[in-house]
Amino acid sequence: MLSLHAPTSERWLRQVSAGLDELLIDHAHCEKKAAGVAMSLLVTYVQNVELGRAMAEIVKEELDHFTLVLDLLEARGIRFRAQRPSRYGDRLSKLIRKEEPGRVVDRLLIAALIEARSCERFGLLRDRLEDPELSAFFGGLFESEARHHSIYVRLAKTFAPEEDVRQRLHELAAEEARIIAEGDEVPRMHS
Amino acid sequence: MLSLHAPTSERWLRQVSAGLDELLIDHAHCEKKAAGVAMSLLVTYVQNVELGRAMAEIVKEELDHFTLVLDLLEARGIRFRAQRPSRYGDRLSKLIRKEEPGRVVDRLLIAALIEARSCERFGLLRDRLEDPELSAFFGGLFESEARHHSIYVRLAKTFAPEEDVRQRLHELAAEEARIIAEGDEVPRMHS
Repeated sequence: MLSLHAPTSERWLRQVSAGLDELLIDHAHCEKKAAGVAMSLLVTYVQNVELGRAMAEIVKEELDHFTLVLDLLEARGIRFRAQRPSRYGDRLSKLIRKEEPGRVVDRLLIAALIEARSCERFGLLRDRLEDPELSAFFGGLFESEARHHSIYVRLAKTFAPEEDVRQRLHELAAEEARIIAEGDEVPRMHS
Repeated sequence: MLSLHAPTSERWLRQVSAGLDELLIDHAHCEKKAAGVAMSLLVTYVQNVELGRAMAEIVKEELDHFTLVLDLLEARGIRFRAQRPSRYGDRLSKLIRKEEPGRVVDRLLIAALIEARSCERFGLLRDRLEDPELSAFFGGLFESEARHHSIYVRLAKTFAPEEDVRQRLHELAAEEARIIAEGDEVPRMHS
């Protein structure tokens, strides 16, 4: 699904079903981080107007989602707080090549893979959570993650030949699948 | 006006009227930087939900303005590019105290003063530029800068006693007026 090399395991669904409050807090942090990633790409490559416009749209959508998760936390009386994130994002960032254009291609493809994994997991939460409000909530976010995935991959192809991007996406997706298979001891969106 | 200690001089209006293309490019960079400042505040103080929500709104508005300026550049056939910024932002940032809560108060008040100066100058450009399209363009952005100014000052007052904030705003505004009076050799929004 969306370039992912391996589906999410039942282990993750069991883990987060038993820690939904922590998952929701992590979700708010993830939306904030996704906005930060897009903003950082906008700032680094600001002279690229096509990328700048696309990133501006993504930042705005991620912040809308951030606000939606804050609303949900508030409605459920869950206090938003700092929390150790999963190691997923840091481990993926270590794969980014140092030299341009490899660097921008990798930043975009890793962002694409994170969106893809979020999309897959939002779909699982929509289909499998017993709480109808949460199920609808995650279902409502599914489409935008899939769209962001496509935007990031499309932009990567403006920096390198299509075949190179496809090959690199394949390599990074294999790494992403390895990282996600290891999991994390705390219930997180990417544990 | 809006806490500012000195009005913009005629020198600035002459300088930017003779360098409108550069001013517009700088304006796009300023909107991007304003979004970055609000995002950085959101990330640093993310557990403060009131601040987080307000910053999310400001980031989105600044990015809308960024896109509007890109549209204007495109319509006028001006290529968006990197440009040496004025020293204004860096010089103001040096005034930020190192220890909390002084640090957050200063970050918010300096953001408030930058919004105030932009607001004042957008008003001048609206009233004095001969190009009706540009005049209307800047007039359309006037209100949001004034609103952002008030939001930043209000938030600062949630971190320190009102009288302390008023006093510090007074000090920083005096510095801001000194920096802006010195100007910059290139035509910029804050030269």
